[in-house]
Amino acid sequence: MNKKVVLSVLLLAAMSSAQAADPLSAWNDTAAKNAIMQWVQNATNQDRSTYIPPDKRYVVFDNDGTLWPEAPLTFQLQFAVDEVKRLAPQHPEWKNDPVLGAVLNNDLKAVAASGEKGLMQLLAATHSDITTEEFAQRVSQWVDNQRDQRFGCRYDSMGYQPMRQVLDYLRDNGFKTWIISGGGIDFMRVLSQKMYGIPPEQVVGSFSLSEFSLTEDGTQLRKTMKGAFNDDAAAKPVAIHLFMGQRPVAAFGNSDGDLAMMQYTAANPDFKTFGLIVHHTDDKREYAYDSHPPASGKLVEGLTVAKEKGWTVVDMQKDWKTVFDPAQCALKPGN
Amino acid sequence: MNKKVVLSVLLLAAMSSAQAADPLSAWNDTAAKNAIMQWVQNATNQDRSTYIPPDKRYVVFDNDGTLWPEAPLTFQLQFAVDEVKRLAPQHPEWKNDPVLGAVLNNDLKAVAASGEKGLMQLLAATHSDITTEEFAQRVSQWVDNQRDQRFGCRYDSMGYQPMRQVLDYLRDNGFKTWIISGGGIDFMRVLSQKMYGIPPEQVVGSFSLSEFSLTEDGTQLRKTMKGAFNDDAAAKPVAIHLFMGQRPVAAFGNSDGDLAMMQYTAANPDFKTFGLIVHHTDDKREYAYDSHPPASGKLVEGLTVAKEKGWTVVDMQKDWKTVFDPAQCALKPGN
Repeated sequence: MNKKVVLSVLLLAAMSSAQAADPLSAWNDTAAKNAIMQWVQNATNQDRSTYIPPDKRYVVFDNDGTLWPEAPLTFQLQFAVDEVKRLAPQHPEWKNDPVLGAVLNNDLKAVAASGEKGLMQLLAATHSDITTEEFAQRVSQWVDNQRDQRFGCRYDSMGYQPMRQVLDYLRDNGFKTWIISGGGIDFMRVLSQKMYGIPPEQVVGSFSLSEFSLTEDGTQLRKTMKGAFNDDAAAKPVAIHLFMGQRPVAAFGNSDGDLAMMQYTAANPDFKTFGLIVHHTDDKREYAYDSHPPASGKLVEGLTVAKEKGWTVVDMQKDWKTVFDPAQCALKPGN
Repeated sequence: MNKKVVLSVLLLAAMSSAQAADPLSAWNDTAAKNAIMQWVQNATNQDRSTYIPPDKRYVVFDNDGTLWPEAPLTFQLQFAVDEVKRLAPQHPEWKNDPVLGAVLNNDLKAVAASGEKGLMQLLAATHSDITTEEFAQRVSQWVDNQRDQRFGCRYDSMGYQPMRQVLDYLRDNGFKTWIISGGGIDFMRVLSQKMYGIPPEQVVGSFSLSEFSLTEDGTQLRKTMKGAFNDDAAAKPVAIHLFMGQRPVAAFGNSDGDLAMMQYTAANPDFKTFGLIVHHTDDKREYAYDSHPPASGKLVEGLTVAKEKGWTVVDMQKDWKTVFDPAQCALKPGN
């Protein structure tokens, strides 16, 4: 090795060790990053009054808009749209249906105008009357075959890098990380382990009940629309109690739909909690919205309450060094 | 020390080390114990085709009649009965109610005859319209104040010692232990960590939805009877999928109400699974029943299917050295 090479190797080693030393390297050194690290240090230091014992370190994250994008459509809604198109040849009657026909005509305004009822119909057509295994298979195939249209990346490569680092950092400090999302529970669970390192049982979302039966060669769970539970807004603390059975010590969200979950967490009587809201302020690298969101993600009341409660509000543009992991998902040239 | 004392000390040390070496010391050395240990050894030995990777080691246990007694009433039904009596002074109208009046008159036959509707009324009176915290408090107080009438022991000391050893043994071998029970989720979660070493989120049972609201000084989750889910029979695999999101590799039950869960487990396409049924054959140390059970626990079809599937059927009288941990719960003299 000549001197230049040796120097480069040393430099690289030093850089990589500096990077390894910073668990939140995708964050700029601003107040937001500092608040996260300060809270974790206080919560894990046994000598401080803010200490939280390991068996109480439960933290909850919204998914759409908090861990991955929700614009222009949530990824799951995009999945439903793509599935309607894929399955349409087997369902010629869909063409004449007001909702499914609108999907086939790319008239998403008409779909949105159909409201809750239209959404349920779209879900029924794409999320029910198949086995749980078949559904998981369909989600996997969709992820393998489709790309986000603006960024050109695989959907499962679009977890926000700064937030994935927060998940890792919390787990490295003994926290159990949970997703509490309005997204479908069966949809998210196909992706959560690989994308976020979160096992299926720690992913909670909207759900309907499946139906069990014996088959010739085993058993079957068939997805239905019965007992539908919409895990949003005031339903989020209900779901946390039902699935997790503990009150969290930290909550991460991005919209008014996360407010109840964050208030429930903040009212934990036993510990100094942490709250964080991701504010979408970056239309160059992602999207910018709050009071006028895309299909989901309205954030108005949350900003007011965050001030009262002292929650950390992340300014995506200023606080995040990167949005997506550049090794996995880079902006398409020209975007 | 004289020689005799030295010998005794050595003997005691040898005995205690032999005991420590046997994770299932409360089991007699019969086929049942052997089957459990053989399956665990096969599942954890990377050199065998029966190996199960750690992230797939999910095992499910019924609770009533599998981990603790369900006779003469399930403990939760006994709790409801005791609560009606405790709360009656504040509800003079209960005296004239067919179901609650029957409870107050100790006429449990009339309560049983009132069927599902009567049971729901009993649950509504004792399990709803209070906050989740108040309910947990009531369960704790009941456990502190009441004793099982036949054995004279605290209810939370009556976990079957052999089954608690199986739970420990499985966890020591990297398995995640879950409860999937017809019992109420909020009731069991008060006791599961201490009794079984199982954290709240791994306890699944019958549930209703709570209701979230803001209060003057924080937030509140109030128990209701809405969205009632009865986690029994064909609903158990549905609950496993909903809460755990994986198919188990082993299932432990004791009644026909566990059959669907055990069939769902046995049909796991990826691994050599294990099934075990506790057959209550010991009316001296516990109870003996199958086709004619107490309030719950009928076992008929389960015995037939167990033979076809090669599940282990535990003969409580022959296979268990102890039923309850004698250090915690000994039979009352004269019983």
